[in-house]
Amino acid sequence: MNHQRRAVVLFSGGLDSTTCLAKAKADGYVCYALSFDYGQRHTAELEAARRHVAENEWIADHKCVRLDFDGMGGSALTDDGIDVPESPSEGIPSTYVPARNTVFLSVALGWAEVLGAEAIYIGVNAVDYSGYPDCRPEFIDAFQKLAGFATKAAVETGERVQISTPLMHLSKGEIVSLGTSLEVDYARTVSCYQADAEGRACGVCDACRLRADGFADAGFADPTIYRE
Amino acid sequence: MNHQRRAVVLFSGGLDSTTCLAKAKADGYVCYALSFDYGQRHTAELEAARRHVAENEWIADHKCVRLDFDGMGGSALTDDGIDVPESPSEGIPSTYVPARNTVFLSVALGWAEVLGAEAIYIGVNAVDYSGYPDCRPEFIDAFQKLAGFATKAAVETGERVQISTPLMHLSKGEIVSLGTSLEVDYARTVSCYQADAEGRACGVCDACRLRADGFADAGFADPTIYRE
Repeated sequence: MNHQRRAVVLFSGGLDSTTCLAKAKADGYVCYALSFDYGQRHTAELEAARRHVAENEWIADHKCVRLDFDGMGGSALTDDGIDVPESPSEGIPSTYVPARNTVFLSVALGWAEVLGAEAIYIGVNAVDYSGYPDCRPEFIDAFQKLAGFATKAAVETGERVQISTPLMHLSKGEIVSLGTSLEVDYARTVSCYQADAEGRACGVCDACRLRADGFADAGFADPTIYRE
Repeated sequence: MNHQRRAVVLFSGGLDSTTCLAKAKADGYVCYALSFDYGQRHTAELEAARRHVAENEWIADHKCVRLDFDGMGGSALTDDGIDVPESPSEGIPSTYVPARNTVFLSVALGWAEVLGAEAIYIGVNAVDYSGYPDCRPEFIDAFQKLAGFATKAAVETGERVQISTPLMHLSKGEIVSLGTSLEVDYARTVSCYQADAEGRACGVCDACRLRADGFADAGFADPTIYRE
């Protein structure tokens, strides 16, 4: 087969996953970026992902998988009837999308199988997203075990895809520092849950707040473009 | 919340999943059927699923999730460049879709979470599909463990969705016998990998062969409609 070391990188176009993609490259992998269009309100993030791929020719391929959940609902990110919160909430936030990372990792696993990739990178973070069940180390460990049974390679050769989570235990400030050392251009990434068509951030949602704190903690000027 | 016992049932419209749906009903669940349109060649199976739902009003809801893999390939069922086999093959068949059941179960898990469902039914079978990594009991056990970490309910109350596989250890003949006892109308189900627009079967692919053997073993007349 091929002797390239390949990795599938879950890539939304936001701050975390753009950092994760740069890290996969720094780790020596040929990178295959995977995005999802699942009816999320903030399609500006996807636009940022496409722009990033167009401007970085070391990314070997980019797939954008469309997922139409046929009105299942359950999250402020896909359901117009649920408000995006503008302040930190108790427990699991309304922006949580049921089983989202399970679905994303499953599709990544399928593509990794087709490509013969060794690793899947996902920018989950247990520090800032402690409210999301599928951002926890226990969840990733369970998916790692599942991957050991789910693929052709696992059955035929015992090989299994490694699930890599380089951001898991980093603060937002540490993520920004890591990405800056890897020359990520954060001005081009979009994190806001309700960014406008030009990718300009609202400055008030949970994602904006976390992101701004990250730049402050890392001691970098915040390059985010905010709406008036 | 509600006091109905709800189950999400993975439902392709084929023989196995139609039997599985009847079993979930017999087990006392209010049934939510979940189908996928993932660019499979045999859309006649999906048409059979829609017809079945229309004719059985005890099915509480039916979602058909569209998944566009953006040309990832890797299977004879989605890739026109790979032939559907017409005889039993060694090892993992070319009709295997990478990580398909992992993706299907993940979406089912998300819907189960939104519905507050107790169970997910999937008609996997280790006897006839021993070549598929994601039809094995070890795979289902690993997904069951993952489900224990992946949802809001798992975090907040320790509740976890039960993955039910009532067909796992049945022969095709036993599946047909079970479904017949539950009044499944098999004339209306489509299994063929290359059925035509009217749902008529080719009679020569792996799926047709297995199905015909099932009716023979169970001692029932084969109600399948074959092309000339």
